[in-house]
Amino acid sequence: MSAAGLPSFVEPRSVAVPRSEVEHRLTAFQETLRAEGIEAALVVQNADLYYLAGTVQQSHLLVPADGEPVLFCRKTVARAREESPVAVEELLTQRRLGELVAERCGAPPEVVGLELDVLPVAHLRRYEAQFPRTRFVDVGPALVRQRAIKSAWEIERIAAAAALADEVFARIPDLLREGLSEAAFAGLVEAEARALGHQGVIRMRAFNGEMFYGQLLSGASGAVPSFLDTPLAGTGLSAAVAQGVSFKPIGRGEPVVFDFVPVLDGYTADFTRIFSLGELPETLVRAYECARRAQAAAAASARRGVPCREVYEAAVEVAREAGLEDHFMGQGPAQVRFIGHGVGLELDELPVLSPNDSALAEGMVFALEPKFVFDGLGAIGIENTWRVSGDGVERLTRAPEEIVVL
Amino acid sequence: MSAAGLPSFVEPRSVAVPRSEVEHRLTAFQETLRAEGIEAALVVQNADLYYLAGTVQQSHLLVPADGEPVLFCRKTVARAREESPVAVEELLTQRRLGELVAERCGAPPEVVGLELDVLPVAHLRRYEAQFPRTRFVDVGPALVRQRAIKSAWEIERIAAAAALADEVFARIPDLLREGLSEAAFAGLVEAEARALGHQGVIRMRAFNGEMFYGQLLSGASGAVPSFLDTPLAGTGLSAAVAQGVSFKPIGRGEPVVFDFVPVLDGYTADFTRIFSLGELPETLVRAYECARRAQAAAAASARRGVPCREVYEAAVEVAREAGLEDHFMGQGPAQVRFIGHGVGLELDELPVLSPNDSALAEGMVFALEPKFVFDGLGAIGIENTWRVSGDGVERLTRAPEEIVVL
Repeated sequence: MSAAGLPSFVEPRSVAVPRSEVEHRLTAFQETLRAEGIEAALVVQNADLYYLAGTVQQSHLLVPADGEPVLFCRKTVARAREESPVAVEELLTQRRLGELVAERCGAPPEVVGLELDVLPVAHLRRYEAQFPRTRFVDVGPALVRQRAIKSAWEIERIAAAAALADEVFARIPDLLREGLSEAAFAGLVEAEARALGHQGVIRMRAFNGEMFYGQLLSGASGAVPSFLDTPLAGTGLSAAVAQGVSFKPIGRGEPVVFDFVPVLDGYTADFTRIFSLGELPETLVRAYECARRAQAAAAASARRGVPCREVYEAAVEVAREAGLEDHFMGQGPAQVRFIGHGVGLELDELPVLSPNDSALAEGMVFALEPKFVFDGLGAIGIENTWRVSGDGVERLTRAPEEIVVL
Repeated sequence: MSAAGLPSFVEPRSVAVPRSEVEHRLTAFQETLRAEGIEAALVVQNADLYYLAGTVQQSHLLVPADGEPVLFCRKTVARAREESPVAVEELLTQRRLGELVAERCGAPPEVVGLELDVLPVAHLRRYEAQFPRTRFVDVGPALVRQRAIKSAWEIERIAAAAALADEVFARIPDLLREGLSEAAFAGLVEAEARALGHQGVIRMRAFNGEMFYGQLLSGASGAVPSFLDTPLAGTGLSAAVAQGVSFKPIGRGEPVVFDFVPVLDGYTADFTRIFSLGELPETLVRAYECARRAQAAAAASARRGVPCREVYEAAVEVAREAGLEDHFMGQGPAQVRFIGHGVGLELDELPVLSPNDSALAEGMVFALEPKFVFDGLGAIGIENTWRVSGDGVERLTRAPEEIVVL
């Protein structure tokens, strides 16, 4: 055991957030605070905490607009000190938080930023009781915007997650057998991912957002929509989860959608390929070719400065030309109006590739997922993770794109 | 496909919430609303929605203090109609919610209950804009209290989840091998659970609460605490998750803690057993015997009407008599002050078996988890799921309790 209580076997390949990364992120966030006239922010949500402090130990990260950030940690202080480059101070009881913040800021601050997009109301009310003269404003959206632009180090992390997806993909031919239930097949796939270091936990920012490894759906399951804002969902094992795998046995001649969310060291990519046992109906094969053309058109249009709308329209136009717009990204009322989403420490990041006018910027990383849905037949499509580079986009998931017929 | 768009293969063993359950729950909740002078509640969080409406389709469940509840559903209406016994009305855009609620209530309600313990502040602010004359109050704690008392049907569901844990436990001797990493071993275990219908998603009510199948920890990993309020946590694969399995290889003569959270059809149980490859150090074996005695003492004291404090003290007293109180439920600053917690649709339900004066009631279901932690050696202990019956408690997890030496 090391002095800080962490065992020496903490695995060598686990990647800590470098000090320079954390310093750069904090500096950029402090600029936002100053620009918006916010004296200090208190950051508490796991993904944001990990981003700004390199740890998810139970803490309040105080980021003053000027001066040194400090991590007030309840549990465990030893791990927070080991994991975070930020100065750690023990918070024995949350009742002391108001006092400690006032001390650090020189006086009780008048305007404090909180992640009001994710923070429960009951928590805000406790802060209001502790900081009676403070007005609380929302810094969640600013953090989300900042996090959308990835550093070179973050892109390496996402590329590693992408490589995990590629590796699991390569093992599928050894795992997929006719008659396996979707659930049993998912178990085999997930076991491979775990052995490779998949962290299991998938973070989503949206309230009620839930995702478990992605959507592994066969045949008609792929055409069953659900509550999530995703093109595919599946029945799930019961109405309690209402998405993902079911006990449906995997049959011959139906598409097996391998929509897989790899997560390594906090960072996620997103990935979809299609398998089948025997040949697929011509309708689906043609739709798949169309999905690849839609992907190519979207990727060709995507570069820094281009509004998301253009990338979205480029893909939709390909679907329209093929007469498949009624099947694109879902069917009927369950059709979704986006073709991709940012990925990073959460699965639902910016940019959203929908008809909106936000411009792509260098360092953004997104999943592009043109998919088609056919009632009764199932879903088909492709998904890769891309980064916006200097003069276009670069694909981070590298597995071959052809339908794998077994 | 059925008329409502659900495929006929939706698995036969998937259990829908019966209409009588939903009606009984809604009636009880309406009594609370009337008693607290709340005109209506809008329920939106997945676990609560599933509890009161039998679905997690994207909805606002309007529960008036008097009159018929209605589920205003955005996505997907077809599945909500299939899954829920509550009347479903399509909500084309959330902007119409204020108007629809006013219509149903006869006038814009003055006092509306929301789950403020989990609802993000930004969501509340949107409701405030839509309901300018309404005061919002917190009905989250009332729902949590109501949900703590399980019906016979719910106890059957939790017993089924408990049986899943028993079944996975029985398969461990075929899976555990020296030199497997914790992560790889977890993958094999999780694959068995998936094939049996484990839903993957584990719901926690606490902000930042995260759990992935439980804690599968070997040797010294078991003694590494973390941010969660749990006696065991483990290093995790990186600081981004900071709990659970790592790449540490499983060795001989160390405890393998199989702390496993089974979840079936929405309902969770909780379960811990100990495996080892070869004999364990005497310190651990003796601590395990003490854990079993602590369990027996706590279970013997637990019955309806008894305050949680008494059950907690009964277990602590056994640890104290054995001179092991400094190792009980963690060590040093990471020691937790509870020996169990309610389970149901969420993993962190009431009752909390801690020094508090709430009384146990018939129908409560809790996990009791006396555990000991020894720096460097690891953790050892036992966990079963129990229900409070007419005259005591009944154990729902039934696997043998002896340490399994392989």
